[in-house]
Amino acid sequence: MSEHIHLSKQEEEEFISVLSEKKINKKQFLTRPGDKVDAEYYVVKGCLQSYYQDEAGNKHIIQLAVEDWWISDFEAFFSGKKAELYVEAIEDCLLLGLERQTLEMLYKRIPKFERFFRIKTTKAFVSLRSRILSALQKTGKQRYLDFCKDYPQIESRVPNYIIANYLGIKAESLSRIRKEIS
Amino acid sequence: MSEHIHLSKQEEEEFISVLSEKKINKKQFLTRPGDKVDAEYYVVKGCLQSYYQDEAGNKHIIQLAVEDWWISDFEAFFSGKKAELYVEAIEDCLLLGLERQTLEMLYKRIPKFERFFRIKTTKAFVSLRSRILSALQKTGKQRYLDFCKDYPQIESRVPNYIIANYLGIKAESLSRIRKEIS
Repeated sequence: MSEHIHLSKQEEEEFISVLSEKKINKKQFLTRPGDKVDAEYYVVKGCLQSYYQDEAGNKHIIQLAVEDWWISDFEAFFSGKKAELYVEAIEDCLLLGLERQTLEMLYKRIPKFERFFRIKTTKAFVSLRSRILSALQKTGKQRYLDFCKDYPQIESRVPNYIIANYLGIKAESLSRIRKEIS
Repeated sequence: MSEHIHLSKQEEEEFISVLSEKKINKKQFLTRPGDKVDAEYYVVKGCLQSYYQDEAGNKHIIQLAVEDWWISDFEAFFSGKKAELYVEAIEDCLLLGLERQTLEMLYKRIPKFERFFRIKTTKAFVSLRSRILSALQKTGKQRYLDFCKDYPQIESRVPNYIIANYLGIKAESLSRIRKEIS
């Protein structure tokens, strides 16, 4: 956070006081479709995925999150609509939850948080846009190499089929790509 | 803007003074791949598209903008990287340009703009996410109906093939859908 805004000791403490610790175990859900989504979560430890499951039961991974990422069904969190995504722990997780109403109050008391979350949201927007473009313009191999850069810690922690799903390629193609590279 | 933040007369004037008027004609470009992108544009009048052209020459429309929308190659604008998108006028346009450096100075002088642009970016992020989900979960017909709601003014102004491309369906499918509905 200190990369983007300077907080006094007191403001720092105020921010920490509005976060609530949450532990969930591997395969547990933070949200499921139909849930009300009141919070977004900062990952202190662990690894999670958010995904949409279509009517045929196919899973489409929207986001993977490891330490120092934020995760939620952001569309539901920001818009107040019901969740459409599953947010599920891939490992046991320690999270810090931030509720929307608390955040709104924080903006009023300490406006510089507007700056921090503006920058954070801009980065999320750019990264989503870049993922869409990358699906249009890059080969599976290039997308895998980008993925290894974006998520340096995740690659050895997450099963093959999850990474393949996230990249939009078949698990066999991912194995072939990995062999080629090594 | 007054929906989200309250500005004094002086702040309002300061904001207006940092915007620069720009006119472009139908089929002219705001940006092309490889360009440096220093500004984002508010649409006062007209209609534009941003799109990516793949190596085979296929066009993928990323955004359509009419009055009261903002457009740019946002990824390039925010990240400082070179443009990857074409931003092209579909009609003659009157725009207001806002430069990144000017915007950064504005944030410093009048921090409540952080709030305005945080809200705006959050909406753009949610709408992009929602478009991805909608491509996964909705039929062409449902997507077309959503589109008519999101862009009530655009539908009669933009050629069939552009709307079809934006929706990710064939032009013939769009014609069939339109017949069904009428």
